[in-house]
Amino acid sequence: MSTKKFSCNIQVRFADLDSYGHVNNATYFTYLETARTKIFMTQGIDFMHEDILYVVAKAECAFKKPINLGDELKVHLWISHVGKASFDIDYMLEDPEGKLFATAKTVMVALEKGKETPAPLPEKFLQLVKG
Amino acid sequence: MSTKKFSCNIQVRFADLDSYGHVNNATYFTYLETARTKIFMTQGIDFMHEDILYVVAKAECAFKKPINLGDELKVHLWISHVGKASFDIDYMLEDPEGKLFATAKTVMVALEKGKETPAPLPEKFLQLVKG
Amino acid sequence: MSTKKFSCNIQVRFADLDSYGHVNNATYFTYLETARTKIFMTQGIDFMHEDILYVVAKAECAFKKPINLGDELKVHLWISHVGKASFDIDYMLEDPEGKLFATAKTVMVALEKGKETPAPLPEKFLQLVKG
Amino acid sequence: MSTKKFSCNIQVRFADLDSYGHVNNATYFTYLETARTKIFMTQGIDFMHEDILYVVAKAECAFKKPINLGDELKVHLWISHVGKASFDIDYMLEDPEGKLFATAKTVMVALEKGKETPAPLPEKFLQLVKG
Repeated sequence: MSTKKFSCNIQVRFADLDSYGHVNNATYFTYLETARTKIFMTQGIDFMHEDILYVVAKAECAFKKPINLGDELKVHLWISHVGKASFDIDYMLEDPEGKLFATAKTVMVALEKGKETPAPLPEKFLQLVKG
Repeated sequence: MSTKKFSCNIQVRFADLDSYGHVNNATYFTYLETARTKIFMTQGIDFMHEDILYVVAKAECAFKKPINLGDELKVHLWISHVGKASFDIDYMLEDPEGKLFATAKTVMVALEKGKETPAPLPEKFLQLVKG
Repeated sequence: MSTKKFSCNIQVRFADLDSYGHVNNATYFTYLETARTKIFMTQGIDFMHEDILYVVAKAECAFKKPINLGDELKVHLWISHVGKASFDIDYMLEDPEGKLFATAKTVMVALEKGKETPAPLPEKFLQLVKG
Repeated sequence: MSTKKFSCNIQVRFADLDSYGHVNNATYFTYLETARTKIFMTQGIDFMHEDILYVVAKAECAFKKPINLGDELKVHLWISHVGKASFDIDYMLEDPEGKLFATAKTVMVALEKGKETPAPLPEKFLQLVKG
């Protein structure tokens, strides 16, 4: 459990919009992932080359306001729960004035690469959370 | 409330995989949408040219098994709740042998085109549900 | 050089459309890749687990007609040139009545996995081409 | 014809990578579009709400180096040809040190909204080009 918040600016792309003219619902989950992976990398957690894979076990999103092409988008996230081999991330998608586009949560599981069995969360990760 | 189930085959694309070698988590939500919109169209509900937009208010997915490139994927869905201007869809993502990849749910809201105010579900839609 | 043609049906997804209401231009290249990889797999060329990676060195597409959500889409492709470590694929995107949506070409290069140096085209691939 | 160059930073997303571990080839075309539409908007050309649609008639890309997740990516573009109802854009994809990832070109056609007939390029656009 941590109250430490991390933030990431997201670049909204024309291709993120669907034919309704707003950002497509599935793309919100891409935004969560973009923020999560960029923040992990900044914090020294190399999820692409280490022995641990962090995979999404559950994901949910409540869509509050449509996101338009010109919107300035920020994803704020924080670790809301830590288990043995899993943790929860909570997210808020906002513009800089605090207009709330969505709230979301993902349950992440750590897996040993190549084995697909749960792995204890590495020390480096636990330090990040306690930060 | 309906127990009527609809099914849709999904074509898994190479580009759906991420660098972990499995279908990316956000893409599952694209699969839900692909199934939902194809089934709506087949049932005579033209969500692109009518006065009603069906937008996703909430979405959640529990990821059970990774989907690989060669997998044969089916999305089964049914309307699990009907409100005045909203309804829930439940989903199962399986292969033809019943291997379960994921379960999911979306809360859909009907909006009047151009106004973004809730609209009563059209009669044609209610008939589909009672089917 | 081969006149042997291969075809692949493509499932058009709602998310493939952009806010202009038609399939986004970048998605055409995803369609080419989807057809190419499916046909390779069907022909016994396992581009994901063998020692050779087939990467795109050049890609071009001429967009003739917009693709809509309900369109039935087929990609026809054939190997139009074979070099030592590279080959060209030509594509036509059509509906079953022969309405032409696009023509395209990709120059593919075979690379040794992990090395990123050109690799001679494997015998299995050359047999496929000679068909 | 103009030698005026515009540049746009692109945020590379984890989801842009495919199972080869590099940015997928189709995504390069999304990068071109992202840069093009952002620069147009900055220059006061509102391609989403005006009477003119700018559509891609042809697109080509030469892939020089793979783009990785941590790469800092810039798209430089310039109008390389202007016709009556069409124009060409040339692109270079680089990192800040000048490492070249790709070169590309798109032929753009101006269409009257709703009619799909070619429209003369608006004065505002021509001024942008002469800049």
